[in-house]
Amino acid sequence: MTLKRMGRQTLYLPTAPIIYQAAAVVGPVEGKGPLKDHYDEILPDALIGQKSWEKAESAIIKRAVQIVLQKAGLEQKDVSFLLAGDLLNQIAASNFAARDINIPYIGLYGACSTMAQAMAVAAVFVDGGYAQCALAAASSHFDSAERQYRYPLEFGCQRPPTTQRTVTGAGAVLLTGGSGDISAVRVTHVTFGMVMDLGMKDPNHMGAAMAPAAAHTISQHLSDTGQEPSDYDLIITGDLGVYGLELCKKLLLDSGLELADNLDDCGIRIYDRNAQDVHAGGSGCACSAVTFAGQLMHELTAGRLGRLLLVSTGALFSPTTQQQGESIPGIAHAVAIQGPAAGGGG
Amino acid sequence: MTLKRMGRQTLYLPTAPIIYQAAAVVGPVEGKGPLKDHYDEILPDALIGQKSWEKAESAIIKRAVQIVLQKAGLEQKDVSFLLAGDLLNQIAASNFAARDINIPYIGLYGACSTMAQAMAVAAVFVDGGYAQCALAAASSHFDSAERQYRYPLEFGCQRPPTTQRTVTGAGAVLLTGGSGDISAVRVTHVTFGMVMDLGMKDPNHMGAAMAPAAAHTISQHLSDTGQEPSDYDLIITGDLGVYGLELCKKLLLDSGLELADNLDDCGIRIYDRNAQDVHAGGSGCACSAVTFAGQLMHELTAGRLGRLLLVSTGALFSPTTQQQGESIPGIAHAVAIQGPAAGGGG
Repeated sequence: MTLKRMGRQTLYLPTAPIIYQAAAVVGPVEGKGPLKDHYDEILPDALIGQKSWEKAESAIIKRAVQIVLQKAGLEQKDVSFLLAGDLLNQIAASNFAARDINIPYIGLYGACSTMAQAMAVAAVFVDGGYAQCALAAASSHFDSAERQYRYPLEFGCQRPPTTQRTVTGAGAVLLTGGSGDISAVRVTHVTFGMVMDLGMKDPNHMGAAMAPAAAHTISQHLSDTGQEPSDYDLIITGDLGVYGLELCKKLLLDSGLELADNLDDCGIRIYDRNAQDVHAGGSGCACSAVTFAGQLMHELTAGRLGRLLLVSTGALFSPTTQQQGESIPGIAHAVAIQGPAAGGGG
Repeated sequence: MTLKRMGRQTLYLPTAPIIYQAAAVVGPVEGKGPLKDHYDEILPDALIGQKSWEKAESAIIKRAVQIVLQKAGLEQKDVSFLLAGDLLNQIAASNFAARDINIPYIGLYGACSTMAQAMAVAAVFVDGGYAQCALAAASSHFDSAERQYRYPLEFGCQRPPTTQRTVTGAGAVLLTGGSGDISAVRVTHVTFGMVMDLGMKDPNHMGAAMAPAAAHTISQHLSDTGQEPSDYDLIITGDLGVYGLELCKKLLLDSGLELADNLDDCGIRIYDRNAQDVHAGGSGCACSAVTFAGQLMHELTAGRLGRLLLVSTGALFSPTTQQQGESIPGIAHAVAIQGPAAGGGG
């Protein structure tokens, strides 16, 4: 059998699995942001009738799964696997959502890199003929994340400028078998990341903790596939925020890669930093999940975006290891996606 | 392309990836248990020179990976993927181990079902030609788990008879491409579980929380593959303990499946309940990980065990959701394994 590998970290998917449908559900703050017209549902409040933020987050991921199935005209029994994760301890939001979803479940943890991780594993399963169709999903919630990772919201702790706002929301995408149909949005390659740690210890500066992993995965993907940065219309990181993206650009430049206009970050796109009190931008699993399932998927489908590299970035931050003096490792997984505008090449 | 699926939840792996090597590292209590002759390393104490139990757990999983690579005569660069997880919040033991291991990393969370989950995903990646060789690993640690999930050990809380002892240790297995070699230990099928919840709320009775998922995955695997319980020499659950295994047997009987001598539990095998103060038996990701990588792998290799179904069981328990009144969902993933004694059939 021919190995479907390119270089050290990248897999080539010969059948190019199709991203058949996607759904993005967000909270009220995200619903006032610049990407508001791209979401399937904007929730009126962050609790949506639940008794806790954790239960609300679980309901949100369930809602995203429900919508993507509706859009695809499929039922739960038609889906081979659900691959999902989130930021809560024990990925509780996904686990409790999966309890109410009658689909074999593979729980993942990649912190905020989870969306690309789930899409990458799902794409491999579909490409290899192990799934007719697979769901990849990820969620995060500002209120549940703040109290778990930093301070109780009621404490009203002042946040330094480098902090980011965890996106409240969930994205879900449905992958189906590729048929060589170049009018579809399809996954051509996936690159699984290595854990990188340059010694960053500030839990209020996650962008800096993740930037080395983002730069490493981007340059490794380009080197594995023999491509230049300009081969992509857009290379978009998950949630580096303004400071993290600057660091990532600098690290790429140091390794000889100049990315300018075609490098952006979901965490920068998702909020209006002038009008919204979000400091360095958005973060959380949902940041790249809803930006992809919303705006980026629409741009791909409409032919305004041809070749996209989605690089979800995760800070493997743990309050316990932090208290024990550890730094914050990062990881980034990448998914190479082509829309109809890319034509048959690539 | 022919779909490699059987029934709702099971995948058939045509190339039958080989479990080339396995390593089991355990703590001192496990090292006094009935399976002590099967471990690669028995640690003198649970801290092994580290400053915290969490750091020790991370060092243990790293050690298991190191040993399995040594036994296989491979280096990190020879391995395509590391799939790993553990019980710590943010799977910190695995993340920090992966930081020091130069292999693309896919973090998983399936609670104590993680070993079978990691082996199943790794086997799919190898079977499909996405990896020449992949590492699956999982760890747990009695001391780090107790203080995270239940009470600080210093508190000296009395434990009811249904509690289990989290196994301190880590297991790692190396999967490589199958070649039809029936003298090897090989993975023929994997079954990914659904999340099951019959309303159990007692965090001191995890066996009962996991039993429904174990019974469901076992009966689904047999039905998907058109097999009888007697087709397996051994069906072994991960960590149901004595009470959980009884419940699982009863649930299987209720669904018309009578399993007697060929159903056992790693959590029962790993300790001597008469001589060791372990209540209902062992638990934790490492329970099925070290029992498989130790005793079961030896039995398979030596031809004393032909066909094995390893069913790692996970209680998706979260202290946060528990405090919010939620029950404890369970999940079980299964890996069907054949040793040389099974011959070429199956």
